[in-house]
Amino acid sequence: MRTILIIGIGAGDPGQLTLAAAEALGRTDVFFVLDKGAEKHDLIALRQELMRRFARDDHRVVEVRDPDRDRTAEGYVRAVDDWRRDRADLLEAAMAEHLADGGTGAFLVWGDPALYDSTLAVVEEIEARGKLDVDHVVVPGVSSVSTLAARHRIGLNRVGRPFLVTTGRRIADGLPPDVDDIVVMLDANCTFTRHVGEDLDIYWGAYLGTADEILVAGPLAEVAPEIVETRRAARERKGWIMDTYLLRRRDPVTAG
Amino acid sequence: MRTILIIGIGAGDPGQLTLAAAEALGRTDVFFVLDKGAEKHDLIALRQELMRRFARDDHRVVEVRDPDRDRTAEGYVRAVDDWRRDRADLLEAAMAEHLADGGTGAFLVWGDPALYDSTLAVVEEIEARGKLDVDHVVVPGVSSVSTLAARHRIGLNRVGRPFLVTTGRRIADGLPPDVDDIVVMLDANCTFTRHVGEDLDIYWGAYLGTADEILVAGPLAEVAPEIVETRRAARERKGWIMDTYLLRRRDPVTAG
Ligand SMILES: C[S@@+](CC[C@H](N)C(=O)[O-])C[C@H]1O[C@@H](n2cnc3c(N)ncnc32)[C@H](O)[C@@H]1O
Ligand SMILES: C[S@@+](CC[C@H](N)C(=O)[O-])C[C@H]1O[C@@H](n2cnc3c(N)ncnc32)[C@H](O)[C@@H]1O
Repeated sequence: MRTILIIGIGAGDPGQLTLAAAEALGRTDVFFVLDKGAEKHDLIALRQELMRRFARDDHRVVEVRDPDRDRTAEGYVRAVDDWRRDRADLLEAAMAEHLADGGTGAFLVWGDPALYDSTLAVVEEIEARGKLDVDHVVVPGVSSVSTLAARHRIGLNRVGRPFLVTTGRRIADGLPPDVDDIVVMLDANCTFTRHVGEDLDIYWGAYLGTADEILVAGPLAEVAPEIVETRRAARERKGWIMDTYLLRRRDPVTAG
Repeated sequence: MRTILIIGIGAGDPGQLTLAAAEALGRTDVFFVLDKGAEKHDLIALRQELMRRFARDDHRVVEVRDPDRDRTAEGYVRAVDDWRRDRADLLEAAMAEHLADGGTGAFLVWGDPALYDSTLAVVEEIEARGKLDVDHVVVPGVSSVSTLAARHRIGLNRVGRPFLVTTGRRIADGLPPDVDDIVVMLDANCTFTRHVGEDLDIYWGAYLGTADEILVAGPLAEVAPEIVETRRAARERKGWIMDTYLLRRRDPVTAG
């Protein structure tokens, strides 16, 4: 039996590591890293810092080249499925080769593993195949959503009300009519600009938890151009960007 | 100037404390505790353990008796507002009396401070009054929602899809029609039993992160009676319960 730890490491600040996650790093024999080619340099640096501080001296790192992925919107779910299967193939082979029976492997996952992350599904697929005897444990982490709220010093919900977490693609054709607080992730296109005509506040954050963190908040119509420009300039300067935001109806449609 | 730290401490497992939260505990002169009278004994014990392990030897604890609160559904928002004002009065007085100018006070908040917690609003109200010169910092934590997902080893969203976080009261008259994954908090009434006729899976967890943790998952119609009975018995045995669950449509209405 091999054990796989799926460890949430927080949104970018090493201080967001939990004690349980630090302890899990110290129990790991082999760290599996999906090399995404153009992966963000700073994120690799954070992962390395955490391993240096908390992993055992004799830990090993196995890099697996991530299979290419169709990123067009139409092919999205189908592409994700294929890509997961290819990933599962590669990881299964890597585990068989590099992780001894009785050993402990780990994945370090940004933020919380339960939020828009595919590691769990890939590990489950390997288990379902039944070729390797694998079990897995999830160590929850601080998500970029919680970090966004903390930095803006706001709640995600308003008193007694719901909030939605969704993607940029999902709000392209309109905001859901029945919820007033909407967290948007995975938005490469500043989709909030489509909603400047609505009575919304935005709380936006990029590179949350890192030294480059940028925060902008205010009435959407007023601050949208500033966010678009800030985002463009930051992305150009650093070569990549990760951003998340909350859209909040100023005049709620849900009853309090 | 006084600094107030609002520190998320995780859902019940001391291992969920982050390094930044541990460090924040070590910087705190005075911990403010809202004594809720019948507060859950185990939760008080966790807070005390964290202070013992991470606070300075000369830290002080100031308990403030929480004002009574109207908990009827009709009076909910209004009652919350009044109660916040009363709380702000009490805490403002406690800060003026026990926290020196230049000192650091802290609140230890269950889970993540951004989720259904009123500490931020109370501290903001004190700042807005302007009588005391106070500033505050939020340290995000691992929420009970992330813990629920980790223990069940599931994602909160399905690929590319949204999820909603809401309250028991909100789903009493029906589930939102446009989202397939619904996390329910603050449900004292097993409101999921109203939806057994729908094609849902439930992932339920109580006392998450503690030694008493209970997990039940399965098709809602099948496991609802077991959850109701498990919950009743556990609540009777321990005198209190905290539970959270995810309702997941087996046949999604949102496009993938
Ligand atoms: C693949 S998802 C992973 C989310 C992650 N599991 C979490 O819990 O935050 C990536 C998205 O998360 C958000 N994100 C992750 N880290 C972030 C950061 N440090 N700052 C801003 N947004 C971040 C962005 O919306 C990004 O598009
Ligand atoms: C006032 S809210 C506070 C939520 C908290 N700030 C968080 O991030 O988890 C209390 C609700 O959170 C959920 N909850 C908090 N701790 C929990 C635990 N250890 N196990 C299960 N549910 C929990 C329950 O739904 C409970 O009704």
